[in-house]
Amino acid sequence: MTELKNDLFLRACLREDVERTPVWMMRQAGRYLAEYRATRARAGGFLNLCRSPELCSEVTLQPIDILDADAAILFSDILVVPEAMGMELTFGVGEGPKFPDPITCLADVEKLPIPDPMVELKYVMDAVSTIRRDLNGRVPLIGFAGSPWTLATYMVEGGGSKNFSKVKAMAFNEPATMHLLLEKLADSVAAYLNGQIASGAQAVQIFDTWGGILTTRDYNEFSLQYMKRIVEQLTRTSEGRRVPVILYTKGGMGWLEAIADTGCDVVGLDWSIDIDVAKARIGHKVALQGNMDPTMLYAKPERIRAEVKDILARFGHGNGHVFNLGHGITPDVPPQHAIEFFKAVREESVRYHG
Amino acid sequence: MTELKNDLFLRACLREDVERTPVWMMRQAGRYLAEYRATRARAGGFLNLCRSPELCSEVTLQPIDILDADAAILFSDILVVPEAMGMELTFGVGEGPKFPDPITCLADVEKLPIPDPMVELKYVMDAVSTIRRDLNGRVPLIGFAGSPWTLATYMVEGGGSKNFSKVKAMAFNEPATMHLLLEKLADSVAAYLNGQIASGAQAVQIFDTWGGILTTRDYNEFSLQYMKRIVEQLTRTSEGRRVPVILYTKGGMGWLEAIADTGCDVVGLDWSIDIDVAKARIGHKVALQGNMDPTMLYAKPERIRAEVKDILARFGHGNGHVFNLGHGITPDVPPQHAIEFFKAVREESVRYHG
Repeated sequence: MTELKNDLFLRACLREDVERTPVWMMRQAGRYLAEYRATRARAGGFLNLCRSPELCSEVTLQPIDILDADAAILFSDILVVPEAMGMELTFGVGEGPKFPDPITCLADVEKLPIPDPMVELKYVMDAVSTIRRDLNGRVPLIGFAGSPWTLATYMVEGGGSKNFSKVKAMAFNEPATMHLLLEKLADSVAAYLNGQIASGAQAVQIFDTWGGILTTRDYNEFSLQYMKRIVEQLTRTSEGRRVPVILYTKGGMGWLEAIADTGCDVVGLDWSIDIDVAKARIGHKVALQGNMDPTMLYAKPERIRAEVKDILARFGHGNGHVFNLGHGITPDVPPQHAIEFFKAVREESVRYHG
Repeated sequence: MTELKNDLFLRACLREDVERTPVWMMRQAGRYLAEYRATRARAGGFLNLCRSPELCSEVTLQPIDILDADAAILFSDILVVPEAMGMELTFGVGEGPKFPDPITCLADVEKLPIPDPMVELKYVMDAVSTIRRDLNGRVPLIGFAGSPWTLATYMVEGGGSKNFSKVKAMAFNEPATMHLLLEKLADSVAAYLNGQIASGAQAVQIFDTWGGILTTRDYNEFSLQYMKRIVEQLTRTSEGRRVPVILYTKGGMGWLEAIADTGCDVVGLDWSIDIDVAKARIGHKVALQGNMDPTMLYAKPERIRAEVKDILARFGHGNGHVFNLGHGITPDVPPQHAIEFFKAVREESVRYHG
């Protein structure tokens, strides 16, 4: 096992002492980078890229080189799990993901298997071990998966959605069907994340991109309890270190206390809440990850730096802060702005540590 | 002046005694109704419909007949204000609104006039007085406008947006330009709403559809202070009665206390917060409007009724609740579900009053 040269991210996730605040960024390996677009073109499309461990590793490492990020995150897509459950998945050019044959009834759910990650998702496991080899201990590698609710929205709607009419109708009218789907997804995701950890992931994040479209009671019933079910099944120690678990619900700032109570180590924040307010509400139970408005990266570098300083000052002294955006970086951000953002966090955070 | 036969809505807005909880619904005159689609087809498109006072009145009254709604809301579009400021506005078939020549710089903002609602928006004023004539005192008429920030997003982006990159870049990089735009919009909207009140609107609602994409500090700086500037300019008494002002920020549930402090009478809630939690946070300063998940209307009528009962029970006894959805009804809802929703509120709310 290669020793980690930079473990700031893992230490911050566990609220241990750090010399400065670590920073990474959701979608840091992505379309805003010309290097990423070139690799994707070579792969012949997005899904081909996801299926090539060597090319996954290439794009995963690009932001480590370009931004000097303190963590790498596996390059993949949350929808490879439903695909491994037997659902055909397509990404048309310039289109979002599509499931041409969506889930419509109990019989559709009953026939879904729990995939064996070492078989149906072996290409992801291979990507994880390839990335670890190529990282060579520079920074830790984060694995990830979509939340059961978020995956269910795509599987029932047949793709992205504006009003989520089908998945909501199923949740409201056929709750037993929805719960069976969510149970199967929770167990599939737990096995998948444990596979990633066994293959070398040193932390994992669950992305609940669409939890925020629910009411409080529906969030508890259809999203949060299934993320908790995953957390309870996860391998928490690997290679002699604790494997931090990060839960991120976009639009979930009303439910931070409940998210922190799932047993996760880190709560991911979107940008709709001030981080000092989040910290005061949650207390010292977990670390916080976030939470700069991703569109702040459209601003000039000096404005970005002012925002970084503001967020750092709000978090203040003390451990348990992983700097990130409140959601993924958007494709039309100039890469130089992202570089300046990372630099600002590295430089401005020193005063709050040591 | 015709006496109001049903003034439950106005009384609830002012936290006065009512016999049952009044109910209306955002976008209640809209595409889910075949009657609306027929009138729009006769008008020859959406903007033609907005410009015809007689046809506006026709569609405004449809949900009063069909749903027995306790309030009518002017049929119009928030973007008629920027259009009256000289910006060309188009609605392609099946497309969202477009401003082909968006605001890009200070010079663009400087040349924008504050429109005289009695001149450039006379067709809206005529619609208001026509609707009042046709309502003949059945229920009160609500006027409305978009918030300055929400209008600015369309004017700078040139239409709807996914990432709001242009309007955020202007706010972050050219704050003086953005503030001049928002000042002009606030004063235009205030004059426009006062025109609606003078023409017969008995309450007004400001729709801040895109306030929720901002951080707390940016919401205060770019959205809330300009809604407050409008509230401070509004005519608050007309025809011998107080004219309630409703503020609704979608995604603004983190800022309810600040919204309630603007001087408005009613805070509109989206569905991401339980109404009992909102009531506990705000106290008895204002009435609350909301807040059923609009997608609950995809559920079967018995499930809709259970949700109505839950929300009524959470609000509990006491005055100051206007039942509504947390956002507009979506076009593919079966009208019968909306009818059952209104019926459920009328029947189930009696136990909490008198």
